[in-house]
Amino acid sequence: MVEKIELAEPHLAGWLSSLGLGVEYIRSQGNTLFYRDDQGTEIPVLDLVGGYGSTILGHNNPEIVAYAKALLDQGTPIHAQFSRHPYANDLAWKINGILQREFATDEHYSAVFANSGAEAVEVAVKHAELDRVMKLAELTEEIEAHLGEARAAVRSGARIATDAAAGLLGPDAKPGDVGDIDRLLEAVRAANSERMAARPVFLAPEGSFHGKLVGSVQLTHNVGYRTPFTALAAQCRFVPLDQPDALEKTVAEERRTVLDVTVEDGVVRLTERELPVICAFILEPIQGEAGIRVLDRAAVRRVQEVCATIDCPIIVDEVQSGMGRSGAFFASSHLGLQGDYYTLAKSLGGGVAKAALTLIRGSRYRTDFELVHSSTYAKDSFSTLIAGRTVDLLEADDGRAYRLAAERGDQLLEVLGRLREEFGDVVKDVRGKGLMLGLEFHDQSESTSEIIRDQAQAGLLGYLFAGYLLRVHAIRIFPTASATNTLRFEPSVYLTDDEIARADKGLRDLIAVLRKQDGETLQHMHA
Amino acid sequence: MVEKIELAEPHLAGWLSSLGLGVEYIRSQGNTLFYRDDQGTEIPVLDLVGGYGSTILGHNNPEIVAYAKALLDQGTPIHAQFSRHPYANDLAWKINGILQREFATDEHYSAVFANSGAEAVEVAVKHAELDRVMKLAELTEEIEAHLGEARAAVRSGARIATDAAAGLLGPDAKPGDVGDIDRLLEAVRAANSERMAARPVFLAPEGSFHGKLVGSVQLTHNVGYRTPFTALAAQCRFVPLDQPDALEKTVAEERRTVLDVTVEDGVVRLTERELPVICAFILEPIQGEAGIRVLDRAAVRRVQEVCATIDCPIIVDEVQSGMGRSGAFFASSHLGLQGDYYTLAKSLGGGVAKAALTLIRGSRYRTDFELVHSSTYAKDSFSTLIAGRTVDLLEADDGRAYRLAAERGDQLLEVLGRLREEFGDVVKDVRGKGLMLGLEFHDQSESTSEIIRDQAQAGLLGYLFAGYLLRVHAIRIFPTASATNTLRFEPSVYLTDDEIARADKGLRDLIAVLRKQDGETLQHMHA
Repeated sequence: MVEKIELAEPHLAGWLSSLGLGVEYIRSQGNTLFYRDDQGTEIPVLDLVGGYGSTILGHNNPEIVAYAKALLDQGTPIHAQFSRHPYANDLAWKINGILQREFATDEHYSAVFANSGAEAVEVAVKHAELDRVMKLAELTEEIEAHLGEARAAVRSGARIATDAAAGLLGPDAKPGDVGDIDRLLEAVRAANSERMAARPVFLAPEGSFHGKLVGSVQLTHNVGYRTPFTALAAQCRFVPLDQPDALEKTVAEERRTVLDVTVEDGVVRLTERELPVICAFILEPIQGEAGIRVLDRAAVRRVQEVCATIDCPIIVDEVQSGMGRSGAFFASSHLGLQGDYYTLAKSLGGGVAKAALTLIRGSRYRTDFELVHSSTYAKDSFSTLIAGRTVDLLEADDGRAYRLAAERGDQLLEVLGRLREEFGDVVKDVRGKGLMLGLEFHDQSESTSEIIRDQAQAGLLGYLFAGYLLRVHAIRIFPTASATNTLRFEPSVYLTDDEIARADKGLRDLIAVLRKQDGETLQHMHA
Repeated sequence: MVEKIELAEPHLAGWLSSLGLGVEYIRSQGNTLFYRDDQGTEIPVLDLVGGYGSTILGHNNPEIVAYAKALLDQGTPIHAQFSRHPYANDLAWKINGILQREFATDEHYSAVFANSGAEAVEVAVKHAELDRVMKLAELTEEIEAHLGEARAAVRSGARIATDAAAGLLGPDAKPGDVGDIDRLLEAVRAANSERMAARPVFLAPEGSFHGKLVGSVQLTHNVGYRTPFTALAAQCRFVPLDQPDALEKTVAEERRTVLDVTVEDGVVRLTERELPVICAFILEPIQGEAGIRVLDRAAVRRVQEVCATIDCPIIVDEVQSGMGRSGAFFASSHLGLQGDYYTLAKSLGGGVAKAALTLIRGSRYRTDFELVHSSTYAKDSFSTLIAGRTVDLLEADDGRAYRLAAERGDQLLEVLGRLREEFGDVVKDVRGKGLMLGLEFHDQSESTSEIIRDQAQAGLLGYLFAGYLLRVHAIRIFPTASATNTLRFEPSVYLTDDEIARADKGLRDLIAVLRKQDGETLQHMHA
């Protein structure tokens, strides 16, 4: 049989093969993926990638699989758009209950469904923009009312304050002239109309990753992913949260005002009012693709304070960090960060379905959004019911899964921490929380090995390591997408001591090879 | 038990209930959805909505359900990102084979996977923009080479053409002056840099619907869906294809050039080169949400000709029209419209999974795209294998499903056509192809019934009809989203004569009520 050329991402397939990563997995279970070797023997691979955070309860969790099959047996009405979906409401309530518990609040959040994490982010962005546009309309109406009042006041004898007249009408204005009020109002309207046309701005910490759709990729800091598509969508400013005052400075640069008028003591004065131009601040409580970085608590508090000042909503992207991985359902709860929006996906699908959800704080929720947003595949019974069952499994036994995530994560972190202590020359840092951990290697772009040096300079070091660990140790691991010197650890809560020991053994061997600067050994020799 | 307030789209739920559409379906099979009435009896509902085009092979098609369960039993490796995915390549080849057959071409199309139709559109848009940006870079490099050649030529005695000098250097230029060439080149560079920063423009026929994500919603003509989010993404110009020269006029308005230089016979001349600013033309071969409208063949040919002139790629959105519904796999094949991109979703998931795909013509494909785009949930084994099986089922028995779609569609169209003939006072038009049909009612915003008039004026007439048909005739049908006087018919290929007769009976009754202008009967009386 003639091998067909690859039509589904040929370049990627070739590159994976060159590193020895081009294996075909044939089944998966728990923390294990299986492939067949050349002799047809099934080889089990310890999976530390966990579907990039999608399998908090393991690959093909038996309870979730059994439930999915039962749904199919029952003929679940997957495509029943525009009907009553009690299961969607049930899921929203379950997650609201958890949110209320973890943030000690009694606020409600509305739920909008989507099909992927990036879609959930775009739902949040669209809603925040709708809210902003509606606020602009409300502001315009309010100002119009004030302008009308000012006009009436001047006609009844009020005068225009000298500075207002000078600023907008020019130095030759005669503030006492009743006719000037109409000129003033027109000038206010013209100025506001121009100011209100300002494009919305988004803010995010440096290192942010929020997906790769047209809108969400502009909130993703990685230059390679984002810049080719800059002209397609609204822009985000990325703030270095570790620099004091960087956020304040950025906000000050972006803040805009519109003009309003007041009438007091028979004087019409111009005032400035905040224009909602910063549409939202978006962040991951634990940054994933930036190298697994838990946001600093004090920095987060500063974000909250600054956003409160300008009434800017905070979108907490829990697509990767949420669903219990951090030891709590919401990683942001560790930071005391109650957001205005939350996004959930990845493990929400239980490792089987494609489920995604955006929560919107009740006080900010605009019901009009329901009239302008929808998706054929979203809110389907199959993925929504599986998401509900997944949440039930996380909550079972008084949240045993969260305790496991914390405890198993601590065990793994301890092992990784020992590697850093022992091999500080190679291992730069170890960090994270629960089952979202990162191990960062020192830069190798000056390596004495050409092979290692080349991969490091190409920003592909972690993939070279991944190839080695898979080939030699049957361990599946990958770097974080935007910080490729950092290996990510996101296994399921069922990670065993034995699996941790295997990871330790593989990593110790990798470190030994690296300390010898033995590039040949790391390299994949093609068959 | 206290009823919990609705957190998942409460406004929508209330509105559906008010029309009698707030039923909870508990299972589905073929063209039937079931709910329980107050006595607990299962009520079968004839479903003509078909998951907005997602169930070409029926709800819970037994073969697809059995296959999905078998995949789950086998522990299919759903989350195996960054490994070899032969099933993805297999699906790409299957669809390539169909494409080559239907368009009589031997070209190949690469495949990029996504999770929803809107995502597939955004993949096409992102790829088209990457292609455009790379073309800009290539163009810049080429022009730079020409500028260098021109400089060398002038230093070797060539002169600058008078008009070039006058245009860019001003009337006091001395074209003979060697120093002027540097000024000229700088002027060219400055002009080009400004011109190349022009934002990309998209073109689409009026009535287009391409999804509701941040980028795709700007390609969706419906003002209500699109305008609140205008500031978030690149803009589209919507062209009335029925107006001769409208497209040419729009393209002429949007066309931009950059400057280049030539050296010929010792003279340096300025030339203008096409700037790729129109990123893509996107269209549905059969417009869905605009009221089920098959594009005009001559208009499509004009689009092809104009796009060829400016090397503008055509994105053929087959999310709703594709997968055999039109009587061919690609509805565009009826129009002789071979696109540069195709999007597929909805029925690609076989009514069970969330599958989506973008095909990109090999000659336009940029492998760099694979390095900048990805999605955690996309290209998973579960949805991709189900998509493959769905395509197999469509192709089985020499394409029996396509023949069924054509034949069943003709039967249904004949019945609808008779309604128009008999009740032309109420039924305005009947149209479509295969199992993508629309029945348009005359405007009722001047109805003598206040109930009918109000719904018509609110743009909700079709939903009023939907409520009546569901309550009284157990028929599920909805209007198209942007043309709510038109009811959509998108049942599965297994539509029976009996089901067609039921639809006929229900519609005849609805028409009779409407002819009596009997709003009370159409209205849902709350229990």
